[in-house]
Amino acid sequence: MKIIGVIGGMGPLATADLYKKIIYFTVAEKDQDHSHVIIDSNPKIPDRTDYILHRGPSPIPEIVKSIRRLEAAGCDFLIMPCNTAHTIIEEIKKTTKVPFLNMMEETAKYVAKKHPGEIIGLLATDGTVYSGAYHKYLEKEGVKVVTPSENQEKVMDFIFKGVKSGNVMMSLKGIEDAVKELTEKGASVILLGCTELSAVSDRIKELDYVFVDPLDILAHAAVIKGGKKAKEV
Amino acid sequence: MKIIGVIGGMGPLATADLYKKIIYFTVAEKDQDHSHVIIDSNPKIPDRTDYILHRGPSPIPEIVKSIRRLEAAGCDFLIMPCNTAHTIIEEIKKTTKVPFLNMMEETAKYVAKKHPGEIIGLLATDGTVYSGAYHKYLEKEGVKVVTPSENQEKVMDFIFKGVKSGNVMMSLKGIEDAVKELTEKGASVILLGCTELSAVSDRIKELDYVFVDPLDILAHAAVIKGGKKAKEV
Repeated sequence: MKIIGVIGGMGPLATADLYKKIIYFTVAEKDQDHSHVIIDSNPKIPDRTDYILHRGPSPIPEIVKSIRRLEAAGCDFLIMPCNTAHTIIEEIKKTTKVPFLNMMEETAKYVAKKHPGEIIGLLATDGTVYSGAYHKYLEKEGVKVVTPSENQEKVMDFIFKGVKSGNVMMSLKGIEDAVKELTEKGASVILLGCTELSAVSDRIKELDYVFVDPLDILAHAAVIKGGKKAKEV
Repeated sequence: MKIIGVIGGMGPLATADLYKKIIYFTVAEKDQDHSHVIIDSNPKIPDRTDYILHRGPSPIPEIVKSIRRLEAAGCDFLIMPCNTAHTIIEEIKKTTKVPFLNMMEETAKYVAKKHPGEIIGLLATDGTVYSGAYHKYLEKEGVKVVTPSENQEKVMDFIFKGVKSGNVMMSLKGIEDAVKELTEKGASVILLGCTELSAVSDRIKELDYVFVDPLDILAHAAVIKGGKKAKEV
């Protein structure tokens, strides 16, 4: 059995959700059947979108501190429950010998297999959208992706003024407008490409569209890579 | 700011709940306002009740391995979201120089302050009840405690055949019988002295009694000891 290392705190609720999903996806009847998980929930990591788009402080030094602690604790592989942080994963990977399980890569593989030929609509932060990171992984798997234009600001409002500020019951109108725009652009599958959206996926999934949650894909893949049997995603 | 180390996996869902409670109790508007938490969710720790009552394998060697990893990661103090494990905390404390925040001790102080002169009814595993651990901490604070007799087996069934086996919607009849017995013995406050009960506290609290959840007390105390402002428990 391998130890799963979680670079957490981006944000903390998303990390807690991922941990619960790992527990849920593990086939287990008692405590001793579960995955071994070590989480470093580090609040000192600066905002990722602020860094990528507005030259804010780099999150990398604090992420590396988390990695050092997870290395010292003996983790066998690392995961990051934050989509935006994946836009700089290549830089982060250079700082450690411990392998990563890449949420975007796993999601792209899953989508290509489960939704072949379909167009993916991406709901994510400005940082994730404008970096083109999901595009890179999805297009590598032959999957076409579209993003919101006039409604991207509403997605950002929902993420920052809504979920990140604790207003988890904020109206879904902005998200629905963005999803409508994506479907008009041909999307038949909507990717919840920000963990703050995953955190309220129960609410979002009440909208009548097909959604894929990368946090589910990551938790499922981590259970298997950790050496445990996983329930179907 | 201090780093909170969590000896987790006893069971994993209780650990996830504690982590969510720490997030909830921290006064925060953004990711960077939260507590620094490192969790070692170790599934190799054997069952605590089985050790205490039936001479099963000792959980201490694996708990010490978790402590070594949390020490290596730089944790400033340690917490254990498992009531039964607290019955052997004195032995565990001898294995490390890192201080513990003791859930039973914090709970006893809270109860003495918030419910002075009242009798506490304890719902817990056989291991916790028969070890007398909660009695020790509560009586030190001058608080009288009563436990179920004919209904203790129903509490164990609810914990092991119910929550620990994933049957979180198991009927509350057994718990209600035990609570009635406790109130007949004079209890006016019921202590959810097992984290599996905390995990379904939303359901249990629908019963019309006053409940205290040690996992709430521990999360709240950890936020403060970690150097952050906490919402009221």
